[in-house]
Amino acid sequence: MKALLFDTFGTLVDWRTSLIKAFAELGEEKGWDRPWADLVDEWRALYQPMMDRVRSGELPWTDLDALHRMALAELIPKFGLEALGSDEIDNLTSFWHRLSAWPDSVSGLNRLKRKFILAPLSNGNFSLLLDLGKFAGLPFDAILGCDLFKHYKPDIETYLGACKLLKLSPGEAIMVAAHNYDLAAARDLGLNTAFVPRPAEYGPGQTKDLRPEGPWDFVADNMIDLAGLLGC
Amino acid sequence: MKALLFDTFGTLVDWRTSLIKAFAELGEEKGWDRPWADLVDEWRALYQPMMDRVRSGELPWTDLDALHRMALAELIPKFGLEALGSDEIDNLTSFWHRLSAWPDSVSGLNRLKRKFILAPLSNGNFSLLLDLGKFAGLPFDAILGCDLFKHYKPDIETYLGACKLLKLSPGEAIMVAAHNYDLAAARDLGLNTAFVPRPAEYGPGQTKDLRPEGPWDFVADNMIDLAGLLGC
Repeated sequence: MKALLFDTFGTLVDWRTSLIKAFAELGEEKGWDRPWADLVDEWRALYQPMMDRVRSGELPWTDLDALHRMALAELIPKFGLEALGSDEIDNLTSFWHRLSAWPDSVSGLNRLKRKFILAPLSNGNFSLLLDLGKFAGLPFDAILGCDLFKHYKPDIETYLGACKLLKLSPGEAIMVAAHNYDLAAARDLGLNTAFVPRPAEYGPGQTKDLRPEGPWDFVADNMIDLAGLLGC
Repeated sequence: MKALLFDTFGTLVDWRTSLIKAFAELGEEKGWDRPWADLVDEWRALYQPMMDRVRSGELPWTDLDALHRMALAELIPKFGLEALGSDEIDNLTSFWHRLSAWPDSVSGLNRLKRKFILAPLSNGNFSLLLDLGKFAGLPFDAILGCDLFKHYKPDIETYLGACKLLKLSPGEAIMVAAHNYDLAAARDLGLNTAFVPRPAEYGPGQTKDLRPEGPWDFVADNMIDLAGLLGC
């Protein structure tokens, strides 16, 4: 096993807490009181439907930055944010480039980096993941954004495209994710799998992805634990 | 200016010394006496003609690993290396994945990394540059291999493809190279340019690329000097 491919949103970074904080700061600056946590949850809830519009061919290839912006624009009336200008909506969309890592991610990855190639394999686009890695201090060796493959996970083109670029067989890669669906797709193609649950990803009351739901090769409490399991 | 795009072979790593050393070790192991420096120089001399075969359409897209192997295979009879098996030729080709950095490269890049996105923009393929970065300790944030663009430098698709993936305008990127032709192509497209001469790249008696031959934005003695010029 030579490379670790990381799901990123939820697995390495705490998008929900980071975004709620960013919106709260905006609200304070503007003097606006809104249910920011609801806005963030609804924004994220549009993630799969937006990608489905690309998968179905309703939209041509559209990267995640653009999907995030479209989804946010849909929520503007509901949350009474019509005063925002286009530049401000761009800026809010770019909050996704500046999310904080879970407390164990950076130290775990620094240990894993000694022995493995580390790359995000996320539905984020190349520049989004690159900015995020720099901002959060995630020591990636390379970036594998879905815009390289013009497909979103769990489409097979993403996992196989990553292995092809790295010139690795699927069995030489480990997909690391907090989401069972991602690991199921990777395992079907012969990749190794590591489940790292993030029970607070969706906030209090999270009901999904609390436990491994498949015969994953590794199950770790966090990235430091994973480093230990992999002998780093 | 947000990102530094590095030519790699010659600019960041000393391919010639590294390869001669690797062949000399092979020779010692095998008990073979050959003019290894000549072999290395002739191997590198086939680099441009091989890429020209791709550019002209004589060959379909073929990555640098494969071109390196084809070029080496051409030299086997001349250097009396017919005893090498196919696996051994593969291994010799992979020497390009394990080249040493110039003495200033790692410390210079570590300083530059604090302020800029760092990525190789080289004619090497993604996996070659990734392996090389890990081996030599070059702290890249992302890898931009020419197989992402299916074009070799100085084709414009490489420079513009890199900017597009990074979502930067050409003026937000700096091309860093020891080769004037590379900077000329980048400058024509609006990228900033930094020349870092490597007068020992081709061994004693090097006659080309000893001096800047264009109005480059920065001229630095080495990567540490470049970090200073860029305020890092």
